[in-house]
Amino acid sequence: MAEIDTARFLADLHDLRKIGEFKTGVHRPTYTPQDMESRRWLMARMAEVGLEPSMDGLGNVIGLRKGEGPRLLVGSHIETQNEAGWLDGALGVVAGLALARAGLPVEVVAFADEEAHFGSFLGSRSLIGAVDEAELDAAKHVQTGQPLRDALREAGLEGIARARLDPARYKGFFELHIEQGTQLENAGLRSGVVSGIVGVSIWRIVCVGKQDHTGGTTMAERQDATVAAMRVLSLIDGRFPMVAGERSVWTCGRLAIEPNSPHVIPGRAEMIFQFRDVDETVLDRMGECLKAIVREVDRRDRCAVMVEQISRSAAAISAPAMRGALEKAAAKHANGQWQSMPSGAIHDAQHVARIMPMAMLFTPSIGGVSHHWSEDTREEDLVLAIRILADAAEDYLSS
Amino acid sequence: MAEIDTARFLADLHDLRKIGEFKTGVHRPTYTPQDMESRRWLMARMAEVGLEPSMDGLGNVIGLRKGEGPRLLVGSHIETQNEAGWLDGALGVVAGLALARAGLPVEVVAFADEEAHFGSFLGSRSLIGAVDEAELDAAKHVQTGQPLRDALREAGLEGIARARLDPARYKGFFELHIEQGTQLENAGLRSGVVSGIVGVSIWRIVCVGKQDHTGGTTMAERQDATVAAMRVLSLIDGRFPMVAGERSVWTCGRLAIEPNSPHVIPGRAEMIFQFRDVDETVLDRMGECLKAIVREVDRRDRCAVMVEQISRSAAAISAPAMRGALEKAAAKHANGQWQSMPSGAIHDAQHVARIMPMAMLFTPSIGGVSHHWSEDTREEDLVLAIRILADAAEDYLSS
Repeated sequence: MAEIDTARFLADLHDLRKIGEFKTGVHRPTYTPQDMESRRWLMARMAEVGLEPSMDGLGNVIGLRKGEGPRLLVGSHIETQNEAGWLDGALGVVAGLALARAGLPVEVVAFADEEAHFGSFLGSRSLIGAVDEAELDAAKHVQTGQPLRDALREAGLEGIARARLDPARYKGFFELHIEQGTQLENAGLRSGVVSGIVGVSIWRIVCVGKQDHTGGTTMAERQDATVAAMRVLSLIDGRFPMVAGERSVWTCGRLAIEPNSPHVIPGRAEMIFQFRDVDETVLDRMGECLKAIVREVDRRDRCAVMVEQISRSAAAISAPAMRGALEKAAAKHANGQWQSMPSGAIHDAQHVARIMPMAMLFTPSIGGVSHHWSEDTREEDLVLAIRILADAAEDYLSS
Repeated sequence: MAEIDTARFLADLHDLRKIGEFKTGVHRPTYTPQDMESRRWLMARMAEVGLEPSMDGLGNVIGLRKGEGPRLLVGSHIETQNEAGWLDGALGVVAGLALARAGLPVEVVAFADEEAHFGSFLGSRSLIGAVDEAELDAAKHVQTGQPLRDALREAGLEGIARARLDPARYKGFFELHIEQGTQLENAGLRSGVVSGIVGVSIWRIVCVGKQDHTGGTTMAERQDATVAAMRVLSLIDGRFPMVAGERSVWTCGRLAIEPNSPHVIPGRAEMIFQFRDVDETVLDRMGECLKAIVREVDRRDRCAVMVEQISRSAAAISAPAMRGALEKAAAKHANGQWQSMPSGAIHDAQHVARIMPMAMLFTPSIGGVSHHWSEDTREEDLVLAIRILADAAEDYLSS
């Protein structure tokens, strides 16, 4: 099997950590000088391991491998959220370098702006051909409002063509990532083979009642929007377990009532409700259940209740042969301390999956912390992850 | 029986409506030039009907009657909410003038700042001795933050003593007011004899969970504060009808979750919950029920749930003899189109009730509108109200 230089793998991670260092984490928002420095650092590392590096017009960095034969794409992203963790994204990219250094036929990619400073997965979606120029013209920084085009010019990327991934070139895409949750840690496990990346279905539920004085309006006269919202949430709580999958999650993260004054019966309540699962049929079933619940409350309650879907992202199932290779390698290296699990968060791999087979591997996040400078993973878990990934890659390539 | 000059009664109301006229309503916030002009107008009308008018250091206007013998206090307030209705408050004060003009032994009062521009019932509470100087020193305008003392100086009230009502002087206090609701209108009724003014019990309920990513946190791991809040509201909805009185009302008018973001499991939910009833024992029972519900959810749910009482105002029952006189007069004049009912809103009478017998009469609000310039009442209902009030006053005085 391929021999991974784990010391060098860890050293690369710590080198990259110094660029945009913030406390024990890093601050490398997309297209900032720190981000661009990290991309140039990456290109130098790619050259060292025998890859031919290039950066495209969006800042995507790809290291191509000369020669013929089947090959894999391995990577993730290297820019970060503000004052965020040192491993989120960087781990998957440096893992690709380690595999290439070990002589595996691997090309390495760092997708730009996975962290959504300017858009939603602009880098990976552009590389699969799912971003047009109009979207780039319209894109602005989510906080400052700076146009993407201006940021690209300041970063020296103006006029450079955007690259496209050729699916015929690759046998598949592997992404190693931190878990960003506590499922592994809570179960005392050290590695997670991702069964698939969840699809996310997001809905707006609106209850319209009648705003009235809390003192002068009898219970019989009221159309209390908070009561209607409570009935919807209560039915979801009771019925979703009957239609959900084993790993489905559902959340009302946003709930706003109007006028939200102690002495006024609320005339309107709006909720944003979302659910996630790796199985599209489960997502469909939960959507039908939600619509039935809203119809029922609308019919029985004095308030009018409406629901509409705001967005739905497609679930992406890990390719069975790639997932199988990861499971075999995990069984070999992790001493029983691993599990299969869905990714509740979205990753670049979800978009890459539209053009080639994909699989992901998770390594634990200490305390589940992510998007914060204190994010971390135990060193022995990082080493375990690169060993599992290397074996799985070699195994899958030879299959 | 006393003969009421109903034409003059209506003319007075329309005269007062011209001061601070706004569309079909009025704009006379406390201590504004329009408010002070209306107080001077009232003093002139008091003098016309043989009362001795005075204005105290808070702007309370009282018209005293010379001579001996039992007497009644009749009134309400004449300042208004911003761009509000022409009858709210004014009706009860002008009704007092009408009774005095008819020769009834009635003194008339207009309490200052019932509408809470600077505090909570400052005028009526001051007149019963329940406001100290420190409260006045601290009071500020609820919107502008202007100190009350500055507003009093600008209104020419600085250095004028505050008056006190002498309970021994009166057989009781009558307040005629618009309903500010739709109970009378919806029941096709023209008059409401107030059985009592509700006590209001206000509580803060806090659910503390754990803020987490909606994707990476399984249902089994979650401590979702919105779910806990829903369970509390659902139990209230199911159990309060078992402990409430026939006319109790309960409302969650304020509900705020944190961070209130679609992709984050809420870590905290705060509700302001209130209930109202005229019966103190019913209020106690509802309070115990609420505490038991919160204890139960705290015990069963993964979130910590806490409740604390923020405030409680005492219910005020109408004096039986005064209420009886109003009912007898309503039966005589309203042709069956009246009912007894609680006042779900709070009025000056609730404070006056602490030092003397009190009763209130409601006249319908068209469409239930109040605190808006479009507030109105049919003229024949105003005339009916003053006839009922006059008969009841005369009847009660002779009892």
